[in-house]
Amino acid sequence: MQLPLGFRYAGVACGIKPSGKEDLAIISTEAPAICAGVYTQNIVRAASIDFNRRMTPCDHFRALVINSGNANACTGFEGIKNNQAMATEVGKHLDTEPANIGVLSTGIIGVQLPMKEVTSGIAAAVKALSPEEESFTAASKAITTTDQSPKTSHLTYNIDGDQVRISAMAKGAGMIGPRMATMLAVVMTDAPLTPTVAQSILATANAKSFNRISVEGHMSTNDAVMLIATGRSPAQLDSAPLIAQLTAFISDTCIDLAKKIPSDGEGATHLIEIIVTGAKTDADADRIARTVANSALVKTAITGGDPNWGRIVSAAGYAGADIDADAISLKINGHQLFKQGQPVEFSAPKVSAAIADNFETTIELAVGTGSGQFNHWTSDLTVDYVKFNSEYTT
Amino acid sequence: MQLPLGFRYAGVACGIKPSGKEDLAIISTEAPAICAGVYTQNIVRAASIDFNRRMTPCDHFRALVINSGNANACTGFEGIKNNQAMATEVGKHLDTEPANIGVLSTGIIGVQLPMKEVTSGIAAAVKALSPEEESFTAASKAITTTDQSPKTSHLTYNIDGDQVRISAMAKGAGMIGPRMATMLAVVMTDAPLTPTVAQSILATANAKSFNRISVEGHMSTNDAVMLIATGRSPAQLDSAPLIAQLTAFISDTCIDLAKKIPSDGEGATHLIEIIVTGAKTDADADRIARTVANSALVKTAITGGDPNWGRIVSAAGYAGADIDADAISLKINGHQLFKQGQPVEFSAPKVSAAIADNFETTIELAVGTGSGQFNHWTSDLTVDYVKFNSEYTT
Repeated sequence: MQLPLGFRYAGVACGIKPSGKEDLAIISTEAPAICAGVYTQNIVRAASIDFNRRMTPCDHFRALVINSGNANACTGFEGIKNNQAMATEVGKHLDTEPANIGVLSTGIIGVQLPMKEVTSGIAAAVKALSPEEESFTAASKAITTTDQSPKTSHLTYNIDGDQVRISAMAKGAGMIGPRMATMLAVVMTDAPLTPTVAQSILATANAKSFNRISVEGHMSTNDAVMLIATGRSPAQLDSAPLIAQLTAFISDTCIDLAKKIPSDGEGATHLIEIIVTGAKTDADADRIARTVANSALVKTAITGGDPNWGRIVSAAGYAGADIDADAISLKINGHQLFKQGQPVEFSAPKVSAAIADNFETTIELAVGTGSGQFNHWTSDLTVDYVKFNSEYTT
Repeated sequence: MQLPLGFRYAGVACGIKPSGKEDLAIISTEAPAICAGVYTQNIVRAASIDFNRRMTPCDHFRALVINSGNANACTGFEGIKNNQAMATEVGKHLDTEPANIGVLSTGIIGVQLPMKEVTSGIAAAVKALSPEEESFTAASKAITTTDQSPKTSHLTYNIDGDQVRISAMAKGAGMIGPRMATMLAVVMTDAPLTPTVAQSILATANAKSFNRISVEGHMSTNDAVMLIATGRSPAQLDSAPLIAQLTAFISDTCIDLAKKIPSDGEGATHLIEIIVTGAKTDADADRIARTVANSALVKTAITGGDPNWGRIVSAAGYAGADIDADAISLKINGHQLFKQGQPVEFSAPKVSAAIADNFETTIELAVGTGSGQFNHWTSDLTVDYVKFNSEYTT
């Protein structure tokens, strides 16, 4: 693993989490850098989302401060003030304007941030900033909530002998407190980019990765994916094919990272990939893949190792996409269960074992109306998911 | 209870269900009657759905045959033939054309009907047809699958001293075999109606009742609601206000029956009603109510007695409706939790107890953009739901 040049990281415990675990991270750049962002579409959203949206894309980024344990969402005017104060505080330490600082937040919603702890946490994190791997790891831990482990991904490649490094971290979609899921991801590279190109690369990579995952389909108030580029690599990215290559590599990094989120979904025992082909449009294929992914009946079938083509095919039927019922074909983990609108003979114990014995289940659904295709990754639905999310003590 | 005049009922066990329980019902009329129907929007649908849709609305209805234990869905050409054979067989016994017979089917999908058993079941049911209450009860049992109990509703009213009787039965949305949910309902009345008026009354009543319920939001291949009217009541329905009155009474009957379905949802410990007001349009309010109802995080919060306004408000935020985040207000069982976009002080133990101690939970959500309103009933999501739907043995 080689971390991209020009970054510094820190992750500290400042007391937001009652557990005493790391809960504040800073990712800074040695010099003003490029920053792009994509954000939750939720109308109900955290102060940090609006704050960052005003900044990106830009070429004056200096640092990102991320706290976990408290999402600072639905907290009204005081929440907006606290968010601003976090940026101001980081800026003060780094001798820069709050307008050059991004803020991300994840955790319980509707509760005001403990600003005394956050302020001293920021001071401690700024002191701890370093380009070393262990600092990167500390930051990746400090952004998690109920994640089983930190989620990171790295990729390095060459352009005419010059290395380009990509590193990324994410958290989610474990449920938070007894509250809700948030997905945060930060992608860092030393590739030389303009703000416009960075935003376009991030939009493409996000559409192929984080926009194709779900746990239970509940959209958070705080979801954000940021791309930061220092330009410290001497590599020249002066042609469309080279930009396309970088876009593909950043997409791959994001896909690798994105799949780790439903894999670590609360109580998950399977990562399910739904691949839809033959739809009228890609948008229709997306709709079908999401509808299948969001069906509690499909999820519980996979949990139980049940090769239940009926639940899958009928979910496709109500997705609101134009499909040909007589042309639907379905494979689970390579086994054909349904063809041209009819069930086919198959060995139920064999297909059941193919689901039960593997962590990953692939559902391939062809719907026979065109050449549109899309995929989606989701987790299954288990007793542990329900237990975790219905536990509540006043 | 007074059953509507002009109907006969039978419910028998013919061997479709391995349990040996009642699995075939016939509802017939003494003379040609009015029949209306509304059906699943699923593109993947059972033969019975297309068959009935060709018949309704009409004035030549004679009988409805309903089997449970096998949905005769996704069964190809043989399934279509078997569906037709059921209608032909009933018609033969009642000396009428198959075009005057409706068919409904619920149970496991993708398996051919055992036609020998069905055929002898039809013969037995025709012999058992009677207008008595016990026959009505037998029919209401024979349409159920994993329902805890049969679901019926009755209402009688007067027009100038002449009685109009409404009786209805439904099944669902317990999960079937290890397969899927189906919702079936039949509404019977002796009111004198034309086919067009019957269809219009049913459309209105259905929109207020069965279209506003869900368990996990998975749309079945076999859902159907039928309205049968014999016209045997001497009551005169010769004015718009009288039709409106009947429409209201049939709607009330359907609402009463519809609420019993999520109440009996697999593993359900709560019936949740979501009432959305202040949306831009009724359609927007419907979208918000459904999105809140379909959120696994909202459902599990209610399961756990968690007054989690964050999950509810954030679900409203991604419903795809135009809402004003700063104007949202929320009450649970009458307790105000959120007002004008801000959380308010409330006693968490008190609200938690108000959820935990009652079977019904009411979520009132005002979204501040207009006068659109809608409601939706759903069940909560429990460990037992997941256990039931992930149990599978090859």
